[in-house]
Amino acid sequence: MDITILLFDRFTALDAIGPYEVLSRLPGATVTFVARTRGVVRTDVGSLGVEVATTLDEVARTDLLLVPGGPGEAQERAVSETVEWVRAIDATTTWTTSVCTGALVLAQAGLLAGRPATTHWGALHVLERLGAVPVESRYVESDKYWTAAGVSAGIDMSLALLARIAGDDLAQMVQLGIEYDPDPPFVGGSTRSAPAHIRAALEPGLRYAD
Amino acid sequence: MDITILLFDRFTALDAIGPYEVLSRLPGATVTFVARTRGVVRTDVGSLGVEVATTLDEVARTDLLLVPGGPGEAQERAVSETVEWVRAIDATTTWTTSVCTGALVLAQAGLLAGRPATTHWGALHVLERLGAVPVESRYVESDKYWTAAGVSAGIDMSLALLARIAGDDLAQMVQLGIEYDPDPPFVGGSTRSAPAHIRAALEPGLRYAD
Repeated sequence: MDITILLFDRFTALDAIGPYEVLSRLPGATVTFVARTRGVVRTDVGSLGVEVATTLDEVARTDLLLVPGGPGEAQERAVSETVEWVRAIDATTTWTTSVCTGALVLAQAGLLAGRPATTHWGALHVLERLGAVPVESRYVESDKYWTAAGVSAGIDMSLALLARIAGDDLAQMVQLGIEYDPDPPFVGGSTRSAPAHIRAALEPGLRYAD
Repeated sequence: MDITILLFDRFTALDAIGPYEVLSRLPGATVTFVARTRGVVRTDVGSLGVEVATTLDEVARTDLLLVPGGPGEAQERAVSETVEWVRAIDATTTWTTSVCTGALVLAQAGLLAGRPATTHWGALHVLERLGAVPVESRYVESDKYWTAAGVSAGIDMSLALLARIAGDDLAQMVQLGIEYDPDPPFVGGSTRSAPAHIRAALEPGLRYAD
């Protein structure tokens, strides 16, 4: 199975690497990181650079597309080359997926029109504006389109998708292999559970809004 | 705060990137990825390459050291340059930390002698042989030495460590920012909960044992 992960300047590292850690363990999978230009693509924080050896125009098809999000997403969503590539590659996929604000790129390409989908909690209103039906959920499955909530949600989505692709046993082996038995130090990882003052302090700094 | 993450050939991506995603969001933090040689360092699966611009001999001190694990750890632990650098840099740190089998590198450097510590469940016996007191726990704190269990456990440890460094409010902001409200599709993410046949199928392929 060919797995293609789209990168762009100022993507959020874990959006891409969480799913990579899970999906790359599918036997026979080939993972390719792609971007508009070859070279090192830097994350939002800037101190991590990921090598990209393949450009968009070199990839005409894939089995699974994954689009991460991050502060750079808004800029990337405005680039017609990227949006047109996403639309074209989607016509060849078995699965088209996103994590966090990567869903907005899919929506911009028209792929989520009228579909239930999710994204980072701070960007649900943008997803709606772009024609999707926003759902507050860890991840949302709509035919071949799987969208995950913010950043860390891509791990949960990828394990569930791996189970769908290759069966529960393999997904459970991967989950045990990466010892994914999470135990967050706080309960407030979602807007449903976070203290109001934490959300209020965080919200102005979010750059996910359009 | 200077945060230094040691990389080596065939490290496990999420071991390093989970903590990076959390700790890099500490205001004023500078994250540096270091390795013995400059260039692209590849993960265990091989399809992800991370840029390393800084070599070990260029880093004489840091505030927080993080050592990830992965199949390449056993080879790296046998390199005296690496082990001696870890021992020397540890003398300058406020926090010395590891994820997964990165703990074995710390143990090899003599830093965990007689200390409670943890690592990937498949490598606890190696940790014991190297002089630490193995503990089956999501993460273990022993003075300035914080060690996390396998792969994904680095996220939990880093959030707890961030709370210790900068207070609960910042850690909760980061947790909400990365929407860390995990919902694994299966319960078997630890050896305590995994079905016996899953563990039996996975164990022979683990390359963590020495």
